[in-house]
Amino acid sequence: MNDKLRAELVALSHRLADVARTETLQHFRTGGLEAANKLQTGFDPVTIADRAAERAMRDLIETARPDDGLLGEELGNKASKSGLTWVLDPIDGTRGYISGTPTWGTLIGLHDGQSVIMGLIDQPYIGERFLGGLGQAEFTGPHGKAKLRVSKTQQLANATIFTTFPEVGTDADAQGFRAVAQQCQLTRYGMDCYAYALLALGQIDLVVEAGLAPYDIQGPLGVIEAAGGIVTDWQGGPADQGGRIVAAATPELHAAALERLLPYV
Amino acid sequence: MNDKLRAELVALSHRLADVARTETLQHFRTGGLEAANKLQTGFDPVTIADRAAERAMRDLIETARPDDGLLGEELGNKASKSGLTWVLDPIDGTRGYISGTPTWGTLIGLHDGQSVIMGLIDQPYIGERFLGGLGQAEFTGPHGKAKLRVSKTQQLANATIFTTFPEVGTDADAQGFRAVAQQCQLTRYGMDCYAYALLALGQIDLVVEAGLAPYDIQGPLGVIEAAGGIVTDWQGGPADQGGRIVAAATPELHAAALERLLPYV
Repeated sequence: MNDKLRAELVALSHRLADVARTETLQHFRTGGLEAANKLQTGFDPVTIADRAAERAMRDLIETARPDDGLLGEELGNKASKSGLTWVLDPIDGTRGYISGTPTWGTLIGLHDGQSVIMGLIDQPYIGERFLGGLGQAEFTGPHGKAKLRVSKTQQLANATIFTTFPEVGTDADAQGFRAVAQQCQLTRYGMDCYAYALLALGQIDLVVEAGLAPYDIQGPLGVIEAAGGIVTDWQGGPADQGGRIVAAATPELHAAALERLLPYV
Repeated sequence: MNDKLRAELVALSHRLADVARTETLQHFRTGGLEAANKLQTGFDPVTIADRAAERAMRDLIETARPDDGLLGEELGNKASKSGLTWVLDPIDGTRGYISGTPTWGTLIGLHDGQSVIMGLIDQPYIGERFLGGLGQAEFTGPHGKAKLRVSKTQQLANATIFTTFPEVGTDADAQGFRAVAQQCQLTRYGMDCYAYALLALGQIDLVVEAGLAPYDIQGPLGVIEAAGGIVTDWQGGPADQGGRIVAAATPELHAAALERLLPYV
């Protein structure tokens, strides 16, 4: 891929996050959300904002790059003619969104048919953006810019681990998570995709999750790999299709987590 | 209390939060924190920022109002000669602070010997401030101002509940929490004092916690009461001395939570 195309794709990624921001912020903390239950079982609210943000991003892609594929949480798939596919989750962490917490995000991944080549996590309310891949590993926030860089933590005993558990996942998923978390220094919950952003910033060391869709992980995956981290499934295989995920700051920490997860895979 | 004194106390509260902001932000996400373990058991880090922020607030109070009392998490007590006591927690949510999450806060309460007459919750990184009491019920944030007002939710089945559990509290505390949470629509974790701020904003409906110190609850208590909410202990008594806390949006929701907690008090 030449520099011109890379620059075009980075610029488009920022524009996508910008248009999504407008839509998601318009309905955040307004108190008038119509959070329909997407599934009969469980609490999975879909908001007006979620659909409007995905619509806005898709329109932009279809105009700028009509041959690119699309995979969105809300509005489905469109096959790629160019080889590139945009993977969109307009609001990751809808439970956080409807609770008013500033830890949900817009996730954008770019997949070339082999792997994720760019990922973006945007937190519109705080005004934070994390972009990794295509030569970038950049954080911008309300207090300035920084280069994304994972921590050097190698041992579970020194690690801070995050997950959206205990409220998400099967019993077996939760057991696997606990097997890792029990060895860690600090366990924290409830940050949605923001945990992946903190990993890429070098603030935390490990995220273990389960039950993810491709659009849940491809944005974070691009960000974390560009920051020097490792993202795989619980068996060490590719993570881009979602499922059970381990994201770690270092190879040593990643190996230690996989070893603890072995009885549960 | 006359209007002039009320205005003076509100202005001083803002100045206290401002000076604390400078200190806490200086060390947030720097990666160089020396987080000593305050207690031999458990993980309760105290940072340089925590002490510097309390020092800065105490200096300001001692200059502006030398007869007021002080109760701070880090630097102890000073008896009141005026009848008023400032109750300070420079960084509530130190685990969140060292993890880089934007959900810790500076808590300031003002107690008149009978009850809390003003409370303030400040989130320096996002730039959000919640002040309640002395005629105020005000939110200021990166996207504007709003009046603080709790939700109208009356039933547990429609309520969103937050806590710092599962990682904090005794087994009995956790059982009590679960007895309430099981009846609620949505349970979320890990937001530290930010959960109380979301309650005052009308975004969530209920917070149940345990093991709190006076400086953990007096700031939130002032904010929530000014927003129209109710804060008591698990038996419905005064909450200003901490311990086990129920904070609810409405009297009906508060009563329903107390009923569920009854077997555990």
